[in-house]
Amino acid sequence: MLDTVDLSKRTRKTEYKARKDDLENQLGELQRKLRDLELPMIILFEGWGASGKGTLINKLLLSLDPRGATVHSITEPTAEEHSHPYLWRFWTRTPARGRIAIFDRSWYSRFLIEDYDRSIADKVGDRTYEEVNAFERQLIDDGCILLKFFLHISPKEQEARFKELESNPSTAWRVTERDWEKHRHYGRYAKITNLMMARTSTQYAPWTVVEAEDWRYATQKVFSTVIQSVETRVRTHNQTEVRFGSPPPDQDPAPDKLSEVDLSPKLSRSEYGNQLRKHQERARELEHELYHQGRSAIIVYEGWDAAGKGGNMKRLLRRMDPRGYEVIPIAAPNYVEKAHHYSWRFWQVIPRDGHIAVFDRSWYGRVLVERVEGFCTQEEWKRAYREINEMEEHLVNHGTIVFKFWMHIDSETQLRRFQDRQRTPHKRWKMTDEDWRNRNKWDQYHAAFNEMIYRTNTDFAPWTIVESNDKRYARIKTLKTFCAELERQLR
Amino acid sequence: MLDTVDLSKRTRKTEYKARKDDLENQLGELQRKLRDLELPMIILFEGWGASGKGTLINKLLLSLDPRGATVHSITEPTAEEHSHPYLWRFWTRTPARGRIAIFDRSWYSRFLIEDYDRSIADKVGDRTYEEVNAFERQLIDDGCILLKFFLHISPKEQEARFKELESNPSTAWRVTERDWEKHRHYGRYAKITNLMMARTSTQYAPWTVVEAEDWRYATQKVFSTVIQSVETRVRTHNQTEVRFGSPPPDQDPAPDKLSEVDLSPKLSRSEYGNQLRKHQERARELEHELYHQGRSAIIVYEGWDAAGKGGNMKRLLRRMDPRGYEVIPIAAPNYVEKAHHYSWRFWQVIPRDGHIAVFDRSWYGRVLVERVEGFCTQEEWKRAYREINEMEEHLVNHGTIVFKFWMHIDSETQLRRFQDRQRTPHKRWKMTDEDWRNRNKWDQYHAAFNEMIYRTNTDFAPWTIVESNDKRYARIKTLKTFCAELERQLR
Repeated sequence: MLDTVDLSKRTRKTEYKARKDDLENQLGELQRKLRDLELPMIILFEGWGASGKGTLINKLLLSLDPRGATVHSITEPTAEEHSHPYLWRFWTRTPARGRIAIFDRSWYSRFLIEDYDRSIADKVGDRTYEEVNAFERQLIDDGCILLKFFLHISPKEQEARFKELESNPSTAWRVTERDWEKHRHYGRYAKITNLMMARTSTQYAPWTVVEAEDWRYATQKVFSTVIQSVETRVRTHNQTEVRFGSPPPDQDPAPDKLSEVDLSPKLSRSEYGNQLRKHQERARELEHELYHQGRSAIIVYEGWDAAGKGGNMKRLLRRMDPRGYEVIPIAAPNYVEKAHHYSWRFWQVIPRDGHIAVFDRSWYGRVLVERVEGFCTQEEWKRAYREINEMEEHLVNHGTIVFKFWMHIDSETQLRRFQDRQRTPHKRWKMTDEDWRNRNKWDQYHAAFNEMIYRTNTDFAPWTIVESNDKRYARIKTLKTFCAELERQLR
Repeated sequence: MLDTVDLSKRTRKTEYKARKDDLENQLGELQRKLRDLELPMIILFEGWGASGKGTLINKLLLSLDPRGATVHSITEPTAEEHSHPYLWRFWTRTPARGRIAIFDRSWYSRFLIEDYDRSIADKVGDRTYEEVNAFERQLIDDGCILLKFFLHISPKEQEARFKELESNPSTAWRVTERDWEKHRHYGRYAKITNLMMARTSTQYAPWTVVEAEDWRYATQKVFSTVIQSVETRVRTHNQTEVRFGSPPPDQDPAPDKLSEVDLSPKLSRSEYGNQLRKHQERARELEHELYHQGRSAIIVYEGWDAAGKGGNMKRLLRRMDPRGYEVIPIAAPNYVEKAHHYSWRFWQVIPRDGHIAVFDRSWYGRVLVERVEGFCTQEEWKRAYREINEMEEHLVNHGTIVFKFWMHIDSETQLRRFQDRQRTPHKRWKMTDEDWRNRNKWDQYHAAFNEMIYRTNTDFAPWTIVESNDKRYARIKTLKTFCAELERQLR
C-alpha cells in the first residue's frame, strides 16, 4: 500500500488557516453527539519515526473535550503486561460508550516493532493477526467506531527530520541509535508494514495512509477523515434500527444432549473420604508447579441453582495456597461495566502467569441469563458464541489452561435442595425469590444451557459435565479432572 | 512485644473440633451483617517464615462468601509499583464498603523485609511510619474495620518447620537460602518487628500477636478476634449515630484573604503573543526533562465556573508531548467510587514516574461542592483538610511535584462570561442550569474556596492564585509558574 502513495501532497498555509477553526469546532460538536448516542470511538496511530504522531495527536486531543477522551501510549510491554495474554492491555483500555480513546501506537506494534527481530511469517505472528482481526470485529459489532491511521514519510524526509532534531541540543536526545538503525532498514520495515496492512485491512476496519510530509496536509486529512466517519455513522444510526455490526453466522440447531446425561453416579462416604484428601494435596502441589512454570489457569463454574457450586469450589480449593488463586464471583454487570463490550469486565480479571482464577459464573451469562431474561438482543447473544470461543482461544494461545465445569442436576434434586435450604436456619439466606422464578423457567434455561455447551465445547477449551445429584461424586470429579489435566499440561 | 508472648499455648483437638463449625458459621453471618451495614474490613497478616500464614488465610477465606472477600498477596513491588508513591498499591486495593480485603503481608513489609538491608532508623523509614499511621487513621475514620495480626513462632520451631518442609520433595523448594539466612538473624528481625509494632500500635489500630506454634490455637484466636471485633463494631453501629472515627481537629477561623486578591493585572495582545510561544516551548522541554529524571508532576486546576480553566489548560499543554501528560477530568463520583474512601479514586490515577497528570477539578471537591451542597457531613469535610494535606505530602515524599492553580475571577466577570456563552452558538453547550444555581450560592462557595486555600496552602504543595479576569494574563502566569518551579526542582 505504501508504494503507491503520493507523498507530494501539500496544504497551503492560507487554506489551512481558513479551515482550522471550522474543523476543530466540528470535531467538538461530533464528540458531543457521540456522547449523546453513547457510541465509543477508537482512533489509532501508527507510522514512521519522526512522522509527527505526537504533534498530530496533541492537536486532535486539544480540540476535544478532555472529559471524554484519553490517550494511550503503547510502549514496550511491562512485566505485568507480558504475563497476560497479548490483547489484555488493549481490551482493558477500550473506551466506554460515548468516550474516545486515542492510541499512540497500538496492538499493531507487535508486528511493526517486534517482527523486525524475528521471522515475519512465524506462527505466533499468524495467530496474532487472527486475534487482532477478531478483536476489532468484536468491538465494531458492539458499536465502536474504529479509525486506523498510518503516518507515511519517505526515507529522505525521515533522514532530514532526524538531522534537524539532532542539530538542536534540546531535541537531540530524541533520535537514538535504534532510530537510525531502523532508518537504514526502511525498506524492510516498509515490507513488514505492507504485509500488516494487507492482513488487517478488513472491510469493517480499513487502514488510512496519511501523507505526512506536510504537517498541514496531514492534520487536515486526519481531522476530515475522523469528522466524515463520525458523520456517516451518526447518520446511519439515526436512519435505521439495524446494528452496525456483522450478522451472527448461520447456526445449525443444537441437539439436546443435556437430557441424556446420566445423573446416577454416586460415591460412598468412605470412598469419598479416601479420595478427597489425596486429590486436595495433589491439587496444591500442581498449583505450585503451575506457578513455577509460569502458566495460568481459569476455572469456570456454571450450573443450575443449588447444583452445589459453592461447596464444590471449597473442596477444590481447601488445601490450595490462597496466594495462587482468586475466586471471582460474577453478578449482574454494574453500570460502568455495562458501558463497555460485555467481555471487557472479564479481561480486567484475567489471571496473570502463575495464577489461577476461579469464576463463580462467568462470561457465559451472555448466552444464559442475559438471553433468557432478555437483557441483550437475540443478535447479541447469537454472536456471543463465536466471541466467547475467540476469547478462550486467545487465552489458550497465551498458555492459559481453561477448565469449564457444568454442574448438572435434575429438577427433583433442585426442588429438594430448595426446600432443605428454606428449612435450615443457617442456609436460609441463600434462597431468594429469584431462585423460584428461575425454576419456573426451567425449560428455557435448559435450552440455553444445552445450546451453550453445544456451541462452545471446543478442542482448546472443552466443557466437563459434572454429574451433581450426588455432591460427593461431583466434588471428586472436579478435583480429578483438574489434577489430571494439569498433570498432562505441566508434564 | 514479642518477648513477653507465651508460645506454649495449645488448643486440644476435641475442643477445636467442637467449636470449628460454630466459628465458621458465625463468621459467615457477620460477613452478611457487614455487607448490610456497608462496612468495609481489612484483615492483614504478617509473621515469621513458616508461621502458617497461607494455611490460616485459606481457612478464613473459605469460611467467607467469596463474593465479598479478596486476598491480596504482597510480594516485591513491581516496576509499576516502584514508580508510584509507596501507598499507591495499598490505597488502590482498599475494599469497598461491605467487602473484606485480606492482606497476606502488607504495607508493613517495607519495615520487616526492606529494613533488614539498611539502617533501621533512616529517614525514609521514619517518614513511612507516619504515612502508614495516617493511612490507617483515614481508613478507620471512614468506617473501615482494620485488624492486624502477627503470627509468632520461636526460632526453634521455625527451624523444625523448615527442616520438615525440606524433608518432603514436593515442598522442599519452599525453603530458600534467603529463608535460612533470615532464620540465622532471627534476633535482629525480632528487634525490627518490635520497633515496628511500637510505632504502629495506635489506639485506633493495635496489633494482635498470634501464638502460632499450635495451628489449632492460632486458627481459633484469629477467628475469635475477628468475630469479636466485628460484633463490637456492629453493636456500636446500631447504638449510636456517632461515627467511629476520630473527630476533626479544632480549627481556627480562616481569614478572608481571597477577597483581597488584586484582579486587575492584564497583558496586551502583543506581550501575550511574545511570551506564549516561548514558554510553551520551554514547557515541552521541561516535560521531557521530567521524564528523563523519572520525576512526576500533578497539576490541579480549581476555580470559579467560567474562570477559564479549559482554555488555560489548553495553552499550557499546546506544545507538550501527549505521551507525557494526561488530563483527568473529575466529575461527581460514580457509585463504585462512592463505595470507597473519597480519595480512593484519585489514587487510581496518580501519575507514574516520568509523567504528568492534569486534574480538571480534583480531591478538593470534598471541601468545595460536597461541603456546600451537603454531599458529605460537616465532620467529613472538616477532617478532609488534614487528609488532603497528608495525601499531598505522601506524593511529595515520593518525589512528585504538586501544582495547585486557583483560577480566580470576580462576580461581574463571571456574569459577563455566562451571558457571552449563552449568546454564542458554539459555546452554548457549556452552560447548564447548574451554573446559574451555583452562582446564586456565590457567598457559600467563596467561603469554601477561601477556607480551602487557607488550610491546604502547605510548604510542600502551595497554592498559586491565578488572577483570571484577564485570560491572557492568567495563561502566561500558569505557564511561567509551571516552568519556573520545574526548573528549580529539576536543576
